[in-house]
Amino acid sequence: MKLLSFKYQNRESWGAVIGNSVADLGRAYPQYPTLQAYIAAGRVLQAAADAATVNADIALSAIEYLPVITQPEKIVCAIRNYMDHHKEVVAAGLDRELSEYPPIFLRVWRSQCGHEQAILRPDCSNSLDWEGELAVIIGKPGRNIPAARAYEHVAGYSVYNDASIREWQFHAKSICAGKNFESTGAFGPWMVTADEIDPKRELWLKTWLNGKQMQSTTTANMIFSVAEQIEYASTIFTLMPGDVIVTGTPGGVGWSAKPPIFMVPGDVVEVEIEAIGRLRNTVRQAA
Amino acid sequence: MKLLSFKYQNRESWGAVIGNSVADLGRAYPQYPTLQAYIAAGRVLQAAADAATVNADIALSAIEYLPVITQPEKIVCAIRNYMDHHKEVVAAGLDRELSEYPPIFLRVWRSQCGHEQAILRPDCSNSLDWEGELAVIIGKPGRNIPAARAYEHVAGYSVYNDASIREWQFHAKSICAGKNFESTGAFGPWMVTADEIDPKRELWLKTWLNGKQMQSTTTANMIFSVAEQIEYASTIFTLMPGDVIVTGTPGGVGWSAKPPIFMVPGDVVEVEIEAIGRLRNTVRQAA
Repeated sequence: MKLLSFKYQNRESWGAVIGNSVADLGRAYPQYPTLQAYIAAGRVLQAAADAATVNADIALSAIEYLPVITQPEKIVCAIRNYMDHHKEVVAAGLDRELSEYPPIFLRVWRSQCGHEQAILRPDCSNSLDWEGELAVIIGKPGRNIPAARAYEHVAGYSVYNDASIREWQFHAKSICAGKNFESTGAFGPWMVTADEIDPKRELWLKTWLNGKQMQSTTTANMIFSVAEQIEYASTIFTLMPGDVIVTGTPGGVGWSAKPPIFMVPGDVVEVEIEAIGRLRNTVRQAA
Repeated sequence: MKLLSFKYQNRESWGAVIGNSVADLGRAYPQYPTLQAYIAAGRVLQAAADAATVNADIALSAIEYLPVITQPEKIVCAIRNYMDHHKEVVAAGLDRELSEYPPIFLRVWRSQCGHEQAILRPDCSNSLDWEGELAVIIGKPGRNIPAARAYEHVAGYSVYNDASIREWQFHAKSICAGKNFESTGAFGPWMVTADEIDPKRELWLKTWLNGKQMQSTTTANMIFSVAEQIEYASTIFTLMPGDVIVTGTPGGVGWSAKPPIFMVPGDVVEVEIEAIGRLRNTVRQAA
């Protein structure tokens, strides 16, 4: 089942994608005002049954896509989690070793945007770069989750473009600033519920800039697996329904190209992951 | 005016401190269910008038203190923002230069605890350390706020103990993990509204471990001032009412002592800032 958050006729809601239409589950089930609330209620596996009771009467083309989870409590992102990306950033001059632990940082929900919403280049820097990534949406609370049980806590999967202001990412050797500019973390178009994707399945992931392929990998190439990332994060945090684990980007980012390639207003960036969908955003200069 | 969040008779509320009592403003003004909502409504400067309409009928000794802002949207923390702390961590082996920009990281609200609530030492590490800091609570929304106008966005001040799991802070050169364990960021006991503290005033800050003074500085010793930190953070984020800027710790942390000193269950750690108050916490082993 594909579930998404959207805006339609000036109202925010969430629903299920049925062909080229949306069943407005937020309207039909007002006790779950957000997709996050629905996930927290443990209903994700009933989404198909719930959607069957609702007319899919809104055209996909008529909605404004919002970030799949509009206000996650936590967005935990992996750093250098594909070997080719690790090697390219070291080759480009970053002093980093492979770590025994999954390196992480946090995004705030206000840094997100949805499918087809603009990725904003701020006025303070031109170094806007793409990062196509698999996003994992947490389904039930947990702390100290062993990797072997990690998938019990997964509600579904989506696509993330962890777009970064490289220059600010290197301020004072602290990655946080460059990863949190408003409307840079693109998240969508929807999540596919976990029952539809076997955890063992290897999914291809590709990123295109203006139609040219820039990144290509499969999720089997992660250094720390989804399960290991959930184990690590849950040692620190209680993971909550709607939390998002953004699992790292493969090689092929703009910063490590020679010369570097950064996104400029008007650019179209797309990230697709097999069995999930294609996330598309246009770059705009911040107002 | 001193404003705080608390729990009393199994109900969470917020209010004003009047002598040794609390006026329960959350009960009297249900349209503002949290202190954060009250701040967002722009009422902080009316707090004294609002409190005057309410009986201060709860003894301070009868409440459970909660983090001053229980669920800030963002908690933006400064790294190495006092020269003596910068020097001690470099002397202790950390490879860091002074930065042209304020180095920052994010905490999640779930990592917080209140005055007199336990700071929890997790099972995975013994390297629990203290960091006494001035906390600044944002009062009105803003993006790209110039330093010269930063204080217009400040609702008040409080005390923070940015307690850290040092070992995890150095995982993969990414500070985030060691700064986000549950119930490590102590925040309280209350906030003092901005009208009571002149921005130019130099406040002393001290930290004690089991009664022994470990840190002592004044807020005039910050490398990046409160105004500069607000300017920087607001370039990245839209700062929102209830957001917290945690402004960095001075020298005297446990990690840089020879040999290092870490907190153990039963330890009592106190941080006091002049004109604000004293934050006191006991360390407990996580269950």
